[in-house]
Amino acid sequence: MSQKLKPAARVTGNRQDVWSIVNEAAAASPKQPVVNMGQGFFGYNPPEFILNAAKGALDRVECNQYSPTKGRPRLKKALADAYSPFWGRKLNPETEIVITTGANEGMLSAFMAFIEEGDEVIVFEPFFDQYISNIEMPGGKIVYVPMHPPEEGGFKTLSAGEWSIDFDVLERAITPRTKMLVLNTPHNPVGKVYSKAELEKIAELCVKNQIIILSDEVYDRLFYVPFTRVATLSPEVEKLTLTVGSAGKNFYATGWRVGWLMGPAELIQYVAAAHTRICYSSVSPLQEACAIGFEQAEAEGFWDQCVHDMKAKMSRFNEIWAELGLAYSEPEGGYFVMVNLSRVTLPADYPFPTHVAERPRDFKLAWFLIQELGVAAIPPSEFYTDANAHIVEDYLRFAVCKPDEVLEDAKERLRGLKKYIQ
Amino acid sequence: MSQKLKPAARVTGNRQDVWSIVNEAAAASPKQPVVNMGQGFFGYNPPEFILNAAKGALDRVECNQYSPTKGRPRLKKALADAYSPFWGRKLNPETEIVITTGANEGMLSAFMAFIEEGDEVIVFEPFFDQYISNIEMPGGKIVYVPMHPPEEGGFKTLSAGEWSIDFDVLERAITPRTKMLVLNTPHNPVGKVYSKAELEKIAELCVKNQIIILSDEVYDRLFYVPFTRVATLSPEVEKLTLTVGSAGKNFYATGWRVGWLMGPAELIQYVAAAHTRICYSSVSPLQEACAIGFEQAEAEGFWDQCVHDMKAKMSRFNEIWAELGLAYSEPEGGYFVMVNLSRVTLPADYPFPTHVAERPRDFKLAWFLIQELGVAAIPPSEFYTDANAHIVEDYLRFAVCKPDEVLEDAKERLRGLKKYIQ
Repeated sequence: MSQKLKPAARVTGNRQDVWSIVNEAAAASPKQPVVNMGQGFFGYNPPEFILNAAKGALDRVECNQYSPTKGRPRLKKALADAYSPFWGRKLNPETEIVITTGANEGMLSAFMAFIEEGDEVIVFEPFFDQYISNIEMPGGKIVYVPMHPPEEGGFKTLSAGEWSIDFDVLERAITPRTKMLVLNTPHNPVGKVYSKAELEKIAELCVKNQIIILSDEVYDRLFYVPFTRVATLSPEVEKLTLTVGSAGKNFYATGWRVGWLMGPAELIQYVAAAHTRICYSSVSPLQEACAIGFEQAEAEGFWDQCVHDMKAKMSRFNEIWAELGLAYSEPEGGYFVMVNLSRVTLPADYPFPTHVAERPRDFKLAWFLIQELGVAAIPPSEFYTDANAHIVEDYLRFAVCKPDEVLEDAKERLRGLKKYIQ
Repeated sequence: MSQKLKPAARVTGNRQDVWSIVNEAAAASPKQPVVNMGQGFFGYNPPEFILNAAKGALDRVECNQYSPTKGRPRLKKALADAYSPFWGRKLNPETEIVITTGANEGMLSAFMAFIEEGDEVIVFEPFFDQYISNIEMPGGKIVYVPMHPPEEGGFKTLSAGEWSIDFDVLERAITPRTKMLVLNTPHNPVGKVYSKAELEKIAELCVKNQIIILSDEVYDRLFYVPFTRVATLSPEVEKLTLTVGSAGKNFYATGWRVGWLMGPAELIQYVAAAHTRICYSSVSPLQEACAIGFEQAEAEGFWDQCVHDMKAKMSRFNEIWAELGLAYSEPEGGYFVMVNLSRVTLPADYPFPTHVAERPRDFKLAWFLIQELGVAAIPPSEFYTDANAHIVEDYLRFAVCKPDEVLEDAKERLRGLKKYIQ
């Protein structure tokens, strides 16, 4: 290729990502079909009332054409109505909400709106991997603060809430260039729901230093302990908080690409400006379906059903770890479970391919499970910097948002681990 | 707002854009409801076979979840099958096509993939306004080359093909930093389909200087004269051409946000990498519907129907200009028509608001039509730099992709122009 055609640095030079490693491993496994508990897509459909709303929208001319760049008025209103009770005041659908093309593009829009070259963004490890490229695209510098699992995590099943950050480390990470801090609660992959006390400590630092809080709350309808939305802590905190939501996560439709950001009008206007420049507008018929979804979800009992169903799946699946004598972090929210496989001994001479062999132990564990048992899970060291990867090298992340028969199949396969556990 | 919360330069400081000026004017017009021939959305639905495909996709679990980041294999294959005959060889769906969230995000992905700070991109005026922010986002510098209407365009209806660029100006615009050139054919707003001879001249310069051609061909199924795809000129040209397509434009569904880029694997891989970082993946059920659309369109006679129907709309609407004695550029493709209103005299004392009064005459013409006749059209000087805005200050752009009764309503209203024409 001509030197003149060379790509920009932002799209080159990355090592193979975890998703393609796991997918390729799954495709090459002798245990076909592999049970995929890796990526967090749902193994079942959105509820009928939302699917019907989508089909109805497809019959309406205006629902198939461009939506306003900031989103369809009906969806913004439905969200304002749905979230105002949590905020304890009436949210303004025209100024305090912007619809984005999934939460992902929403977060990119927030970084594009506020980050200039060299601005710093604090990100907790483990992080959702898209954060990193989204922060780097506008020239942001990431300052990492690691979360640590409980010390007894290797042999004792404890609450995911026991994962913790060191607040002194967090405070020292703040500099005059710190522009934003990314929070994620309920947390992927840890399953932690930050306690009110923890959020207050984080928010206090952000208020003191005037740092924008980007709170990724895409699992906000799946919590099994009390859930605090950071924006609701105080008017001072609300003023600098952008809350991220996802209809894809809320309605079992990760392929719909409908997300949103909520926050003070002063900040949202710039997120909307960035979003317009990135995607222009978002998918119309599915925005309309999500509007109807939010209008009807409460009456349909859907939110309670979500919690009930996911908790049941979580309990059903995690029986296998008790049976195997492996410890895991009992999730407080979301649909991921982090399991500690320190007691699993991998055969000393096992033939790992080079791109797996040179990664931390969790990549080897993931590879081994795919090849030997036909179960795919995600090695979470991908979501730490190299320096901190060792923190989670004994863990794997399993997504339980799958049909019950898939969970049972996975459990049956995982029984094959017994002979590798002393 | 605290200084520390200030937005990035890329989202601030722009004057009000044409879309919001026209929309606000329409909302404030005494002639309600205003006939909107401004924005290029369709006033009718996609064909039944595609809507049915979308509804069918909504019933399938895998069609509601994440698609692969590069797009659904079925859509990539359908596109490869549909476009291979034009390319005269079998396109590789896995390496030569990437699905994007509308053509807009596709073009942003291309700029993000190849533009580094200070790289230059040649853009013809008039341009689609999103190009500008999309090029500036990765730090690109835009070098403008104006298209000129035919000299007799004020009093004689001529082919839109008579709009032309000065090839000497184009050649002088090229520097060692020129990385990309953006082409648009069939052209919005001009309605020009670049001739093969014109494309060859442009392509020759790009081959000589190794400039990537980003060819925006979203109106590629609407041409009324022979249409040449620049990528098909020669293997040398193909090697540096990225062709942009849009299912929204092809299937009357601008709100679906399904687009794609086609090109050599060496370039597409980086576009795909950028797209993954921007939107992760694109909307799944509508990708599936578009796949089925492409599989069936030919057999349904849809492409021929598109041309037939849009040509008929164009002829029907343009009757009014002959009646009024106004000249227009007879479109060779697409669904926009540029009308020359130099013969319209605006009342000397007409009370234009300041934000319109300070813009070129076409903004005043647009405002006047909205207020006095209740017809919205777009002033095209928005799509020129200030220095060149005068070139089109007598023109307005009308979108004819509307139901026939809307076109007739618009014509009836436009008869009100008679008394302002000497």
